[in-house]
Amino acid sequence: MAAAAQFVAHYYTTFDADRANLAGLYRENSMLTFESSQAMGVKSISEKLVGLPFQKVKHEASAVEAQPTPNDGILILVTGHLMVDEEQRPLGYSQAFQLYKDPAGQWFVYNDIFKLIFA
Amino acid sequence: MAAAAQFVAHYYTTFDADRANLAGLYRENSMLTFESSQAMGVKSISEKLVGLPFQKVKHEASAVEAQPTPNDGILILVTGHLMVDEEQRPLGYSQAFQLYKDPAGQWFVYNDIFKLIFA
Repeated sequence: MAAAAQFVAHYYTTFDADRANLAGLYRENSMLTFESSQAMGVKSISEKLVGLPFQKVKHEASAVEAQPTPNDGILILVTGHLMVDEEQRPLGYSQAFQLYKDPAGQWFVYNDIFKLIFA
Repeated sequence: MAAAAQFVAHYYTTFDADRANLAGLYRENSMLTFESSQAMGVKSISEKLVGLPFQKVKHEASAVEAQPTPNDGILILVTGHLMVDEEQRPLGYSQAFQLYKDPAGQWFVYNDIFKLIFA
């Protein structure tokens, strides 16, 4: 699904450039689970993402799969790797997003579950 | 969420014992994406799962995270390992499920996206 691929590219480009700008992709009823820590709503999710303990990060999504969900949503499962700061060894991760369109027709993240994967 | 943990335990126990019995967890509008191959509906999903090219399989879900979704659904992200047949090396995987209740009040799988992870 083109919308899924576009969203994923946009999400990680924004995350890696300046993650404060991810706030625009969430709404008041959005949920984030980041490594078992939970946040809800734009402010709380943005604070969580901005406050993550690294400066530089680079995501590489190696696989993106998507399915339609009820009420015209999209479920996306991403698996990939990321590198933080000066660390040379990539970390595996998996992330599930459920997107919906807001009344203005813009896709936003309703569900976001992120998990690092240790081999 | 208790329903998520119970579902995941039941799903993999059933998968590893006799995956033909997974059919009861899907409905006619259910979708499966298994390693980029897609199936929809009980019959097609069950045929895909039963026809996978291994006899024995053992899943171990090392992390299960869940969030509520619109219309009383549940989104689950599982990361874990599995071993097939006589293979000694576990394979990493990630799987996203979205569950809904059917009119009889039984949870079923609406979305199912499975992906092997190669380190």
